[in-house]
Amino acid sequence: MAFKIGLLGYGTVGTGTAKILLDPVGRNSLLQEIVIARVGVRSLDQPRSPELPAGVLTTDLEAIVTDPEIDLVVELLGGLEPARSLILKAIDHGKHIVTANKAVIARHGEEIFTAANQAGVYVLLEAAVGGGIPVIKPLKQSLGVNRIQTVIGIINGTTNYILTKMTEEGADFDEVLAQAQKLGYAEADPTADVDGYDAADKIAILAAIAFNGRIKREDISCEGIRQINATDISYADDLGFVIKLLAIAKANSDNDSLQVRVHPTLVPKDHPLANVNNVYNAILVEGEPLGQVMFFGPGAGQGATASAVVSDIVNIVGMMQTSQGSEKLDPMLRCSHEHFKQLSPMSEIDTRFYARFLCQDVSGVIGHLGTSFGNHNVSLESVVQIGFRHNLAEIVVVTHQVREGNFHQALTEIKGLESIDSIPSILRVL
Amino acid sequence: MAFKIGLLGYGTVGTGTAKILLDPVGRNSLLQEIVIARVGVRSLDQPRSPELPAGVLTTDLEAIVTDPEIDLVVELLGGLEPARSLILKAIDHGKHIVTANKAVIARHGEEIFTAANQAGVYVLLEAAVGGGIPVIKPLKQSLGVNRIQTVIGIINGTTNYILTKMTEEGADFDEVLAQAQKLGYAEADPTADVDGYDAADKIAILAAIAFNGRIKREDISCEGIRQINATDISYADDLGFVIKLLAIAKANSDNDSLQVRVHPTLVPKDHPLANVNNVYNAILVEGEPLGQVMFFGPGAGQGATASAVVSDIVNIVGMMQTSQGSEKLDPMLRCSHEHFKQLSPMSEIDTRFYARFLCQDVSGVIGHLGTSFGNHNVSLESVVQIGFRHNLAEIVVVTHQVREGNFHQALTEIKGLESIDSIPSILRVL
Repeated sequence: MAFKIGLLGYGTVGTGTAKILLDPVGRNSLLQEIVIARVGVRSLDQPRSPELPAGVLTTDLEAIVTDPEIDLVVELLGGLEPARSLILKAIDHGKHIVTANKAVIARHGEEIFTAANQAGVYVLLEAAVGGGIPVIKPLKQSLGVNRIQTVIGIINGTTNYILTKMTEEGADFDEVLAQAQKLGYAEADPTADVDGYDAADKIAILAAIAFNGRIKREDISCEGIRQINATDISYADDLGFVIKLLAIAKANSDNDSLQVRVHPTLVPKDHPLANVNNVYNAILVEGEPLGQVMFFGPGAGQGATASAVVSDIVNIVGMMQTSQGSEKLDPMLRCSHEHFKQLSPMSEIDTRFYARFLCQDVSGVIGHLGTSFGNHNVSLESVVQIGFRHNLAEIVVVTHQVREGNFHQALTEIKGLESIDSIPSILRVL
Repeated sequence: MAFKIGLLGYGTVGTGTAKILLDPVGRNSLLQEIVIARVGVRSLDQPRSPELPAGVLTTDLEAIVTDPEIDLVVELLGGLEPARSLILKAIDHGKHIVTANKAVIARHGEEIFTAANQAGVYVLLEAAVGGGIPVIKPLKQSLGVNRIQTVIGIINGTTNYILTKMTEEGADFDEVLAQAQKLGYAEADPTADVDGYDAADKIAILAAIAFNGRIKREDISCEGIRQINATDISYADDLGFVIKLLAIAKANSDNDSLQVRVHPTLVPKDHPLANVNNVYNAILVEGEPLGQVMFFGPGAGQGATASAVVSDIVNIVGMMQTSQGSEKLDPMLRCSHEHFKQLSPMSEIDTRFYARFLCQDVSGVIGHLGTSFGNHNVSLESVVQIGFRHNLAEIVVVTHQVREGNFHQALTEIKGLESIDSIPSILRVL
């Protein structure tokens, strides 16, 4: 009883997937029942490894998603189109979907899952977030009995690598980015990674599952790491923090609306996420009554991502064997969202801040800063004069938990103070 | 369509389970279909919170496992009997089982799973290892497509708390154990925890799933932490290590037999497990092609353990809804083991060692140590004279990876050296 799958794409993750499927000894025994029936590629000219039997490779991707022989389509094309259309057509032809494509799920999830539920097929996407780290299925199957309060992730390996190297070497962003590009850890066009868009796609997916509602990707506030510099990393270190690009989804106290945001963040050194370095990813989930759990591992890479893809395939094979004939989807693995969650604007969130000021007049300035922050209900945890830079005094402020809108009002007032030269850095603190 | 469950036991985890089930708003919606039909307790005299409707509590546990109305039995009694007999009888009556009982699964797993497979019922046990950390289901469902190489866990909260406090406070074992007992982190009789038996039960379960074969609990080598002292913790710190009680399961290079062992271990400070402190647990899994993933969270406690119990219940409810009528179990969640794995004796494992020697004659002794180790193929990474104690020189040796049997032969030779007074500590190094 072979279970026939079709792959769309045979690049890094596609060949990784084939490597596992074609070498099943010592792995889950269901692998032996899976046959790679078709693989869709852009061109047949390139040599491929692992090699596939004659006739398996095709450039006709439409033929794969409509092939009546195929039970499951694995979408590894990435990007929005033609991935979206092919997934929808495959669903329309009754095929289960496994995908590693965070962008298409984050932006077209509603359309895709609605179609899948109507057709009675699964759309699994463990590989879309956190590479090889099992996090999507644990969120659905194990953590959902909790009231989830927070999901915080380091879910972009490129930026975590860059920030780790900047921290270790005291180097600035551009220098380390160039290094990372040379090593293949960053793309030639690094925008999606360094500006936080990739992390935003992923937290949209995690938040939807954790908080049981759809997320409008365009409502996610997103700041990248281009403005991070060696100076702030070093001052953060002195204050007991490391700087990480965090993707955060948090239930508001009304228990209905959410905050979902991506930004560089000062993380206390004793926090579990502070020790997640290089290209590793980690996702921390807090819930009631569970407390805090964290999932850690390789967030990218051929083997890790292929492991997640194949685990999704095998789970679908297992469920097909169990429920033969039944059209019902397991409620623990299907998408059950019906409504979009409301996301708070950033001005309404509560967070701590770190801000660095360059000032003319040291003797009076700390008093002025304190007064301006106080005028806007911003309570300060520490104000430290670090030193001098170009004859200006450098002062670092860390606030308590404050309303973001209040903080920015205070900054507007502070910018008007005569003694303030500039505010080179403003960062949030976990 | 209510799904009726019976609880055996209404202590910490049982009441935690009821708290979640009786307060379903904001959690997985399947919870609303679950009814606590019967709860078996030793005596009806005690007041219980949450309170249950009249007639739910009973002292007749047999009546619960044979009740035709009940779909699923949650065993929270702990210990071997009557847990084992009640589980077997419930299976015999066609009930699914959810249990938090590591001891009964580690020791009677063969009998229980064989009966369950014959009866076509699930036995799920997420709560038995790592409290609220999802690790059993991820191992079965997500990581099994890899060839698992290693599972290493900090899976006993009591000993991790004791070792953390000893490290932070420089205190000795007895003192911290007394503290832990006062705080409720250690039992009045701490044997199962501090001698490693609880961790051994848990690694037996993890190893069986990860390596797809049964484990003879009595073949697991088990050393506890009673002999750990402030001196070795401090020397380990100087050398860049922390001491943790690790439970280790490792595939041998023949890819068939295993090593499964529990012992205090020097862990390099930059290893992901080194930062797992206090009562937290973590499980690190290495596989091919995945690489390293780690699961971290609360290893015990009412809410965490109840979260795992309820997640198992909900998964069974989900599967029942999907496969109504079908008698087949999902191969990803049933136990598929048929054979016992062979475990290597400790003398045949390869590991690094830390040993502390008290010696009479410093000038010659390092040469003697080096010669004796060399005679038995034990290669040394470092030999450091730390200082003097009671007029004896204290020397600490760290080896490279060596055959354990060879190391002990070398020690026998070394004990015969005139210059050696004693060998107060021998510990393994990760």
